[in-house]
Amino acid sequence: MAQTVTPPRGMRDFLPAEKARREHALSVIRGVYAAHGFDEIETPVMEDSSRLHAGLGGDNEKLAFAVMKRGLTPDDLAAAAESGDALSLADLGLRYDLTVPLARFYATHRAALPPVFRAIQIAPVWRAERPQKGRYRQFVQCDIDIIGDAGPLAELELLTATVAALDALGLEGCRIRLNDRRILAGILGSWGVPDDLRERALITIDKLDKIGPDGVSAELATLGIDRPGVADELRQLANADWHLGDRGSSRAEPGVPPAWLDLEAFHDLVALRDALPGTPVDFDPTLVRGMGYYTGTIFEIAHPDHGYSLGGGGRYDHMIGRFLGHEVPACGFSIGFERIVDLLAVGDEGQPRSVVLVHDRDVAPGELLTLKHELVASGMRVRFERRVKNLRALLDRVTADGFDAWAPVTAETTDAASLEFRDLAA
Amino acid sequence: MAQTVTPPRGMRDFLPAEKARREHALSVIRGVYAAHGFDEIETPVMEDSSRLHAGLGGDNEKLAFAVMKRGLTPDDLAAAAESGDALSLADLGLRYDLTVPLARFYATHRAALPPVFRAIQIAPVWRAERPQKGRYRQFVQCDIDIIGDAGPLAELELLTATVAALDALGLEGCRIRLNDRRILAGILGSWGVPDDLRERALITIDKLDKIGPDGVSAELATLGIDRPGVADELRQLANADWHLGDRGSSRAEPGVPPAWLDLEAFHDLVALRDALPGTPVDFDPTLVRGMGYYTGTIFEIAHPDHGYSLGGGGRYDHMIGRFLGHEVPACGFSIGFERIVDLLAVGDEGQPRSVVLVHDRDVAPGELLTLKHELVASGMRVRFERRVKNLRALLDRVTADGFDAWAPVTAETTDAASLEFRDLAA
Repeated sequence: MAQTVTPPRGMRDFLPAEKARREHALSVIRGVYAAHGFDEIETPVMEDSSRLHAGLGGDNEKLAFAVMKRGLTPDDLAAAAESGDALSLADLGLRYDLTVPLARFYATHRAALPPVFRAIQIAPVWRAERPQKGRYRQFVQCDIDIIGDAGPLAELELLTATVAALDALGLEGCRIRLNDRRILAGILGSWGVPDDLRERALITIDKLDKIGPDGVSAELATLGIDRPGVADELRQLANADWHLGDRGSSRAEPGVPPAWLDLEAFHDLVALRDALPGTPVDFDPTLVRGMGYYTGTIFEIAHPDHGYSLGGGGRYDHMIGRFLGHEVPACGFSIGFERIVDLLAVGDEGQPRSVVLVHDRDVAPGELLTLKHELVASGMRVRFERRVKNLRALLDRVTADGFDAWAPVTAETTDAASLEFRDLAA
Repeated sequence: MAQTVTPPRGMRDFLPAEKARREHALSVIRGVYAAHGFDEIETPVMEDSSRLHAGLGGDNEKLAFAVMKRGLTPDDLAAAAESGDALSLADLGLRYDLTVPLARFYATHRAALPPVFRAIQIAPVWRAERPQKGRYRQFVQCDIDIIGDAGPLAELELLTATVAALDALGLEGCRIRLNDRRILAGILGSWGVPDDLRERALITIDKLDKIGPDGVSAELATLGIDRPGVADELRQLANADWHLGDRGSSRAEPGVPPAWLDLEAFHDLVALRDALPGTPVDFDPTLVRGMGYYTGTIFEIAHPDHGYSLGGGGRYDHMIGRFLGHEVPACGFSIGFERIVDLLAVGDEGQPRSVVLVHDRDVAPGELLTLKHELVASGMRVRFERRVKNLRALLDRVTADGFDAWAPVTAETTDAASLEFRDLAA
């Protein structure tokens, strides 16, 4: 029964070196978030199908993997064939994000949670996307959310914790792009865009990076938004130096059009920036974020070497109410773990990540295990090999096995500090 | 849109205290297994449906959650209605164990793995069982497997690591029940049971604990196995003192019938026991284990307070070959994490698990965060509360939030060692 054996399309196995690297990065993120006062929770990977398809997931709903009802009868199948509705055969689905499950979790357990609830969720989600480089059908998200705080302290806590996590991972050069849905609403209002077109107009503006001001202007025109000067305004939005200006000087900031100064949302962003000294935050009035549920601040992690965002989030004050029956303010920030971990491919702080310890015959096994435990706890993948005459052949083999470095261990050098790592040629 | 909001049937949310307790226990198990030389891997939660239903999963195959193909057409639905085969609409399924995915993983990555591969898998599995106390539809298994070693060193490593993990968790009183499928085959052979009835006879013998020797004998008779004296032999098997006897004395062991002494498998078990001084191992010739793929040693974790097993495993030498095309010896041990973690409900080593730190106003935030980080890293759930006049009301509230203990923090007591924890009344 030999056969081609691979994981399902678009999904990945993780071998020991990669698994250790991922778990180490996750433990760094988890540790920072816990230190920042967030508490980790977990929900099942599946939610009721009706909940996943309630309109809160945007385009992701179409990408949900559906789980079939058990014990389907021929009559059930015939009814589905009749209606053409395949989803009628599913009662569950795999979550496509961690936000819909969090809203459901909060509604379920409201009475047992503190008034301001700071949640960590570090878990896989699934989307049946067309597989392509850097896109997977199973991938991990790292979310923090604050429920029950109308802001701006919630935004500050989320931004501070996220930047601290990126720092702890050793990921340099990240910047936070910041905007507010109310500012976008102000722009659309100034163009006279009617309410029922705003969502589609935002989706179009979101393409500014890709199709440029003229492309966006043309697409808006097809929606009936053909006010003259839109392309010029978009060009101004996209190209102007929209940094918020010197701390405390926003009212006098020359790059800011006078109309902004009347917007409460703009002043909220300035206050946010002023409360984050040393944090790389940029105001970007063209930032949209795809999800329809955002109601206020929105943010994204940008990295100079990459055109895509490394994570993002925002305020979604009406969503919890969909499950709970009354409104509760909420704000969240999600790190796109797969993209982050790819950027960490080179060992952090120059320390090798997967090492072979080539030990002499006379080193006590107990001392080797203690040493291994210590190195493993620091995030390394460790393998022992007994020293052999043909050391070159041994090192070639472990290089092929994906190890980064090796160190000799003698009876005199059994503590981690005295190990001397040597690079293995790639 | 207020509605009843619960997780899907038979699945659970984990609130912060429970999540922290679980993650702490998992990190203990992970640490012990890594220290014992095993390497963690990960596979996707889904496998191809045909692979999950290839006959290797036993009864669990019937319990697999099926994932529907995307883009099903009315014609597809009509064809399924015609054939009555609902599974024809599924191309993927959620794994029901970690053994089938491991066999597939090994076949996929054989060339990149060492000759003897020691794998850790700590991950959820899904079974659509009827929900009942202690049984869930999503639950975590902790598996270690050794592929490429024909034994008995593999068995020794698995048993040693598993017992070490149970010890590290502070779970006292566990014993390992040990048997070998070849011994069971010997018993069936002595009864003249034909090959095609052996699997069903084993399933019947597996019920010995529940229906007793007479019940098993009666059920065997319905299979056509009605040799006189079967019930008496079963009674002898079930009641005799089957401990393997004093170390090194197996040949003279009075409780062992002379026929055993000719069985190679029996001597293998004695050698195994003799190599595990201080490990609580019992020989139990009536131990069957449900899965059809076991070929040699089988083991289970028993606890005196519980009728059910806390985990188990065994040797499955033919399974990898199903995917690979040639045979590779393999042996594994799986801890039933949900049952273990329930037994750990009381804090290990008397240390409280979820604590509130009631701090004075003048304690520096940086010191509090350092303290929290240290306590969180040790597996605790930690919340800060500033000291208020009505301390009783504060403590009542955090007790209701599920915290176990509290400690005052003053500017003089900001290191973990100087904290004095006080129990919170339940």
